[in-house]
Amino acid sequence: MIRPLSLFIFNLNKQNVKTQVKFASTVLPQFSSEKYGVKRKSFGVLQPRDIDYFKSILGEDRVVTDESDVLPFNIDWIKNCRGQSKVVLKPKTTEEVSKILSYCNGKRLAVCPQGGNTGLVGGSVPVFDEIVLNFNLMNKIISLDEISGALVCESGCVLENLDDYVRERNLIMPLDLGAKGSCHIGGNVSTNAGGLRLLRYGNLHGSVLGLEAVKADGTVLDCLRTLKKDNTGYHLKHLFIGSEGTLGVVTKVAIHCPALPKAVSLGFFGVENFENILNLYKRAKTSLGEILSAFEMADNGSVSSTVKNLKLSNPISDYPFYVLVETHGSDETHDSEKLSRFLSEGMESGVIVDGTVTSEPAKMKTIWNIRESIAGAGLVEGYSFKYDVSIPLRNYYDLVELLRDRLKDHQAKVYGYGHVGDGNIHINVIVPEYTKNMYSMLEPYIFEEVAKLKGSISAEHGVGFRKPQFIHYSKDESALQLMKDLKKSMDPNGILNPYKVLPD
Amino acid sequence: MIRPLSLFIFNLNKQNVKTQVKFASTVLPQFSSEKYGVKRKSFGVLQPRDIDYFKSILGEDRVVTDESDVLPFNIDWIKNCRGQSKVVLKPKTTEEVSKILSYCNGKRLAVCPQGGNTGLVGGSVPVFDEIVLNFNLMNKIISLDEISGALVCESGCVLENLDDYVRERNLIMPLDLGAKGSCHIGGNVSTNAGGLRLLRYGNLHGSVLGLEAVKADGTVLDCLRTLKKDNTGYHLKHLFIGSEGTLGVVTKVAIHCPALPKAVSLGFFGVENFENILNLYKRAKTSLGEILSAFEMADNGSVSSTVKNLKLSNPISDYPFYVLVETHGSDETHDSEKLSRFLSEGMESGVIVDGTVTSEPAKMKTIWNIRESIAGAGLVEGYSFKYDVSIPLRNYYDLVELLRDRLKDHQAKVYGYGHVGDGNIHINVIVPEYTKNMYSMLEPYIFEEVAKLKGSISAEHGVGFRKPQFIHYSKDESALQLMKDLKKSMDPNGILNPYKVLPD
Repeated sequence: MIRPLSLFIFNLNKQNVKTQVKFASTVLPQFSSEKYGVKRKSFGVLQPRDIDYFKSILGEDRVVTDESDVLPFNIDWIKNCRGQSKVVLKPKTTEEVSKILSYCNGKRLAVCPQGGNTGLVGGSVPVFDEIVLNFNLMNKIISLDEISGALVCESGCVLENLDDYVRERNLIMPLDLGAKGSCHIGGNVSTNAGGLRLLRYGNLHGSVLGLEAVKADGTVLDCLRTLKKDNTGYHLKHLFIGSEGTLGVVTKVAIHCPALPKAVSLGFFGVENFENILNLYKRAKTSLGEILSAFEMADNGSVSSTVKNLKLSNPISDYPFYVLVETHGSDETHDSEKLSRFLSEGMESGVIVDGTVTSEPAKMKTIWNIRESIAGAGLVEGYSFKYDVSIPLRNYYDLVELLRDRLKDHQAKVYGYGHVGDGNIHINVIVPEYTKNMYSMLEPYIFEEVAKLKGSISAEHGVGFRKPQFIHYSKDESALQLMKDLKKSMDPNGILNPYKVLPD
Repeated sequence: MIRPLSLFIFNLNKQNVKTQVKFASTVLPQFSSEKYGVKRKSFGVLQPRDIDYFKSILGEDRVVTDESDVLPFNIDWIKNCRGQSKVVLKPKTTEEVSKILSYCNGKRLAVCPQGGNTGLVGGSVPVFDEIVLNFNLMNKIISLDEISGALVCESGCVLENLDDYVRERNLIMPLDLGAKGSCHIGGNVSTNAGGLRLLRYGNLHGSVLGLEAVKADGTVLDCLRTLKKDNTGYHLKHLFIGSEGTLGVVTKVAIHCPALPKAVSLGFFGVENFENILNLYKRAKTSLGEILSAFEMADNGSVSSTVKNLKLSNPISDYPFYVLVETHGSDETHDSEKLSRFLSEGMESGVIVDGTVTSEPAKMKTIWNIRESIAGAGLVEGYSFKYDVSIPLRNYYDLVELLRDRLKDHQAKVYGYGHVGDGNIHINVIVPEYTKNMYSMLEPYIFEEVAKLKGSISAEHGVGFRKPQFIHYSKDESALQLMKDLKKSMDPNGILNPYKVLPD
C-alpha cells in the first residue's frame, strides 16, 4: 500500500558489519553439525547453474562465493555456531528476494535469511550448505510520517541508524538493544527483539504497524500498513514477528516511533541484595510511574568483569548488585523531582546503598555502555554459555544461585543481569573453553529449572538453532502441532531457515 | 500452564445481558440472509439427536431451544442483523467447548461463538441456523499476580467487572470501551477491540500475555502464559486476536494490567474547527506527553443529539467540535500543572474556545458518559448506519463532510466522533428507517473513499458479517490468499463463524 518516496531514500549502511568482526578471533569454531550432531536434510545441492541463475538476477558482485568472503556469514557473533554455506546472496529489492526464493523453492534449495548476524541462538547462520540471504543492501528508509510517527523502511536498515534518523525528527525507535550498531530492523522483527526499553514502549507485536514479507514460494505478502488501528481480517504480520525467518522473509517494516522524550535521566545504584532490587522495582513503579523507561539489574560479577575486560570505569564503588533506572519524560523539572524523591527515599530506607543520578548525555552513555557491554565482555575471558530466560520476579535470581552451586567445583563464572521490569534475566556462564561436559552440566538442567519456575526458556533471544530440542519446556504439544501445521501450510518444502525453531 | 486457583474464583456475571435489551424495540429486524441476499452453505442441519447429545454434555438448562429464549441471541445490538439459530449452548468449561466443537466438526454443524453480543458488524450473531456458543457462564477469574499485573480469566468475564476487580488491587484493565458493561474479554480479544485508551496502553496484541483457544476440531490450544517476554517459537496467540472466532474459540485470556494511575484528570473543550483539533492534539503530545491517556473528539451533531436523546447535560456551551482529553499519572501536582498549562496555552492561542477541567470522579463520569453514549444514542431517532474507519490524521474529518454533501438532499444526519490519537473516526448516518437506496448511497462509496485516503475500512469493529465483500479495499490479494490458507489449515470444514470475515 505504501509506495517509495524517492525524496526520503537514504543510505544507512555505515556500520552493518561492525559486530561481525568485533569479537572475531583466529580460532574457528567447530561446525555446528558436528558439535551438535545434526544430520543434513534432503535438500537440493547447489550447482554451478544455480550460481549462474543468481548472477543473472543480482549481477556478479552480489553473489559471494569466495570461501574467505563467505566465512564471516557462516559464523555467529559468539563464535558458537558455524555453517558450511558456499554462497551469500545480497538482494537490493523485494523483487529480487522473490525471484531467489521462488527459484530455491522450485529446486528445494534451503535458505538462511540473515540480518545483522547478532543473534545469540544460532538462528542467523546456516547449519549445512544453506544459501545465505543477506540484507545488508536493503537499507533504505522509505517514508516517515512525523505526525503519526510511522516509519517505513527496508529490512536491512541498522537499528542505530534508524534511531539517529528519527531522533533528528523528534521521535525515537520503540526498541533499543546492545547490538543496535549492527542489528537490522528486519532481524529485530523476525526475532521479536525485546531489549532495554520494552518496559516503557512495549513489544514489537504492539509497535510494528505493518510489514512486507516474501513467502517460501516467492509470493510477496503486502501487509505494509502504517495505521495504528486496522481490524480488517487476520492480523497476518504477527506470523512473521518472532518466527525467525521460518515462515517468510521480512523485506520491509512499518513501525511506530514514539515522541522523543524532552527529558532523560539515569540513575545507577549499588544495592546489597536481590531482595532490595525487587523492593526498589516496586518503589520505581509507584514513584516514577509513567516516566520509567528502563529498570535493569546486573550482579557484581557482570559489572566487575565487564569493567575489567573492556577497561571501562564504574562510576560507583563495588556492590553485590547494581540497578540502572532510566526515565523518559516531557518535563525536566517534574522528572528530576520524581527521580530525586525516588533516590532519597531509597537511600533513607537503606534499599539504595550508593548511587549516582545524571542527565548529562556523556555520563549516561558511559553508564549504559557498561550495561550494554556485559553480553560480549565475557568472550574476552574464554567461552561463554549464554542463557536468556523469563522467570517470575519473586524467583528472578534463583537460577544464578542454583548454577553457582552446581558448578562450584568447576572453573566457571556465573553472571546474571537483565531486564527486571520484564521478568527477563540473562545468564552468562564463562568457562576457559567449550567442553561437552560443561554443556551437559548446563543443558537441559537450566531449562528444567526454568520450566519448574513456570518461566520461558527463551525470553527474547528466540529458539534459533540452539533450542528447538528444548522448546517443549515452554510450549506444549498442542502449540507445537499448530506450529508444524503453519510451517507445512506456508513453507511446504521446508526451505526457509531449516534446523531452526521447530523440533524434528 | 496456569492452573485454576479456587481461592480466586469469583462470579462476575452481574451485567452480561444489559446491553442486549437496552435498545430493543418491538420491531424485529429482517433476516440478515434476506436483507443482504446470502445463500446458506452446505452445513449439516441440526437434528433432535444433536440436541440430545448437547444435553448429555451440558444438562437440560444449558441447552436453550425455546424460540423466544433464543431470539435475543439471534439479533445484534444495533438491530441490523438477525440470524435463524434454533439453539444456544452455554458451556461452563473448556472441556465442554472442546466436546461441542469436536462433535459439530464431525457432523459439519456450523457454530457462531458469541460473547457479550455488542459487536457492530454482525460478527456475533448467526446468519442462518448456526449453533450459538455463548460464553456467559464462563466468567471466572482464575488468578491475578499483583506484582506483575498478569490477570488470568475465562473468556466470558465482562470487561467492566474485570476492571472493578483489578482496580481494587491497584491495577486497571488495559482497554476500556463504551460497551464495557456487557462485552466479554473473550470477545474483546477475538475482535481485537480498541477503545478509549489504546493511545496510552497500546493494543491487545501488545497486552494479551497468553490465551487458551479451542480449534474447530475440538483441540485445546494452551498458550496461556503470563510472561511479558516469551520468544519460544511462533507467537500463536495472535492468530486468535482479531480473527473474530473464525480460526478458533478463545476460552481463557491472560492479560497485562497496568498500574492504577494515582491521578486522573479530564478536560472537555469546545473547539471552533477541525484544524484546531489537530493543532490541539500536537500540543497535547508535547505538553502532556506520557500522561496523555485519551484524546477523543466529537462533532456538534454527535454531542447535541446524544445529550438530547438520552437527556444528559453538556457541561459546556454549544460548539462546532468537542475534545475530551484524559490524563493518567503518578503525581497529582505534576499532572494538574501540565493540564493547566495545556489549557491556558490552548485558550491563549484561541485553539480552545471554552472548556472545563476536573478530577472529580462524578464529574468525569458525566463527561465520559456523553462520549460513550454517542454510539447508541442515534438509535432513538431511527436507523443508524455505523462506520468505523482509520484515516490519516490530516484527512481525518474529510469523510464526514463528503457524506454530508452526498446526502444533502436526503433525510439523513451524519455525525463524526472518535479516537483522534489513533487516527480512528466513527461515523453514524442516522435515517428514519433502513432503505436499500440509502444503503447503496453509502456502500461501497464510503469504503472507496477510505481506500483513496489510504485508510482502513474497519479500524476496530472488525469485518464480521457486514464487511467481507469490502475487505479488498483494505487487504490485497496476497493477504486474502494467506487468510484463506490459514482458515483451510485450521478449520478445514469451515464450521467456525461462517459467512464472516473471509470473502467468498
